[in-house]
Amino acid sequence: MRIAVDAFGGDNAPLASIKGAELAYKEYGYEIVLVGKREEINKVAFENNIDLTNITIEEASDVIEIEDEPTKILKEKRQSSMAKTLELLADGKVDAAVSAGSTGALVVGGTFIVKRIKGIKRCALAAVMPSKKDYIMMLDVGANAEVKPEYLMQFGVMGKVYMENVMNVKSPKVALLNIGAEDCKGTETQIEAYKLLKDTNINFVGNIEGRDIMQGDVDVIVADGFSGNVALKTVEGVASTLFSMIKQVMTKNAVTTLAAAILKPSLKILKNKMDYSAVGGAPLLGTKKPVFKAHGSSNEIAFKNAIQKAALFAENKVIEKIEGSL
Amino acid sequence: MRIAVDAFGGDNAPLASIKGAELAYKEYGYEIVLVGKREEINKVAFENNIDLTNITIEEASDVIEIEDEPTKILKEKRQSSMAKTLELLADGKVDAAVSAGSTGALVVGGTFIVKRIKGIKRCALAAVMPSKKDYIMMLDVGANAEVKPEYLMQFGVMGKVYMENVMNVKSPKVALLNIGAEDCKGTETQIEAYKLLKDTNINFVGNIEGRDIMQGDVDVIVADGFSGNVALKTVEGVASTLFSMIKQVMTKNAVTTLAAAILKPSLKILKNKMDYSAVGGAPLLGTKKPVFKAHGSSNEIAFKNAIQKAALFAENKVIEKIEGSL
Repeated sequence: MRIAVDAFGGDNAPLASIKGAELAYKEYGYEIVLVGKREEINKVAFENNIDLTNITIEEASDVIEIEDEPTKILKEKRQSSMAKTLELLADGKVDAAVSAGSTGALVVGGTFIVKRIKGIKRCALAAVMPSKKDYIMMLDVGANAEVKPEYLMQFGVMGKVYMENVMNVKSPKVALLNIGAEDCKGTETQIEAYKLLKDTNINFVGNIEGRDIMQGDVDVIVADGFSGNVALKTVEGVASTLFSMIKQVMTKNAVTTLAAAILKPSLKILKNKMDYSAVGGAPLLGTKKPVFKAHGSSNEIAFKNAIQKAALFAENKVIEKIEGSL
Repeated sequence: MRIAVDAFGGDNAPLASIKGAELAYKEYGYEIVLVGKREEINKVAFENNIDLTNITIEEASDVIEIEDEPTKILKEKRQSSMAKTLELLADGKVDAAVSAGSTGALVVGGTFIVKRIKGIKRCALAAVMPSKKDYIMMLDVGANAEVKPEYLMQFGVMGKVYMENVMNVKSPKVALLNIGAEDCKGTETQIEAYKLLKDTNINFVGNIEGRDIMQGDVDVIVADGFSGNVALKTVEGVASTLFSMIKQVMTKNAVTTLAAAILKPSLKILKNKMDYSAVGGAPLLGTKKPVFKAHGSSNEIAFKNAIQKAALFAENKVIEKIEGSL
């Protein structure tokens, strides 16, 4: 497996991506191509004692900033590390691509540089998130603020194939994010998407409401990119706010602090379970070749995990299987 | 204050509403009109030792079921307890109305029996919910799955007036639920609504993302009824799932159970703070007279709280102030 990594994407670039590449090589033996300013990559590696012997560097002179208009990746920023990473993938020089940079630019670059699978109308950003039971996937979480029923149906098919082949879920249960259980709920888009999803041969279990997302009773949640993004970020926000409120309560006085110390290891496990960075990020589903979005705040471990997930995405032939399911 | 209460709405009807009416009379001295089957109300009151001396009963022979098509309230179910409750309000026989019955039917009944304030395009269901700091309001949370920018602007104005006058928040901060901070984010609807909200004289602070809902840094969150409903239910769901996961972790063995016992009172306070039933429910904003939706699962305390909030809604002349703000 050869994986291209955008060395200059994310809040901790380029150190976290370089370290993550080293870790992924050591743990999995993948061939990694770090894309970005060669000189800076070498300098950072030297300063931090990172061994780049088995890692290739591909020069890219520019960087996409988080505030850049996403479409810049196609013209003004064609020399950026993200555009070059996606070009390596489009040209067949690597098997998968990873970036922690601007989500908007990655969606545009994925769609127009790597290009969409024939028949797929829109790419979806597919977040893998923790639930009470196992990991679940929600898609779209932000690539398409507006959708058509057909897109939602395709998101369901793509999510199912990914969860089956990368996350090893047998016959994943697919649900539609909606504001009620009955098939008449939601806007015309949801009502129509419900019918289309029911007509596929995936295991469609009907609508799911916000309050049941975390229960883990379904494996794939199909959503428009607006409410999917709101739901994902709300889950993240509530979990982190509650943990900080619990911490406050627990350190109120000496006695509660002592009791809290006893519970700390167990709570830590729970908090880690709810930690989004553990899954490394979100695949972009719908492109002709595997593109993986690492979390913007990725540290080296999150990068290593993202690289592994991207490799599994390629290795398990998710894209070929999506093509076969259409 | 004279308040009409739909005695047959909610999961615990009619016992919870009758008890709640008795409690509200005793605590606040409101004149309560219980609407529903007289014979059954009297029977339940007798069996449960509830004193109805100071409570009026208004006969309504029918009941709206949760699975009824909402528009039935206007014709087939015109003799229902909910329709009769709203008629008492429309006819000026009471100052406010409370129901824990079907939200859809209450929105339809509020809109067409009580009618909308002149100039208000749509009614919004406005949930008051706990946050890290104080209570916040999110509207719409389900009355309108699809909205226009102008509706969102009006929701902002109505929410501001309610929070100011019923929840005593000075110059409430109003934000728009969106998928990014910048004013170009979201669909055309959000982009346009952002401009309209900025042009009002309310304290509009820009977009808010799902992850910041619980922070309590804003007082009113304006949303379309679809993503507002998803966000509200996601907050509820994540909070309740996390508390149940924490409980599991804490009772793992004898030592953690002991430590948990010490922390229990503090955690209980936190859990109660996050409990939605404490606020009693959600006002329906936009009707000519005060309509208040109690939570479907309301017990007698939630009913008492809902009746009090409905009374404050009327007493503090929220509707007159909304009219003045348009």
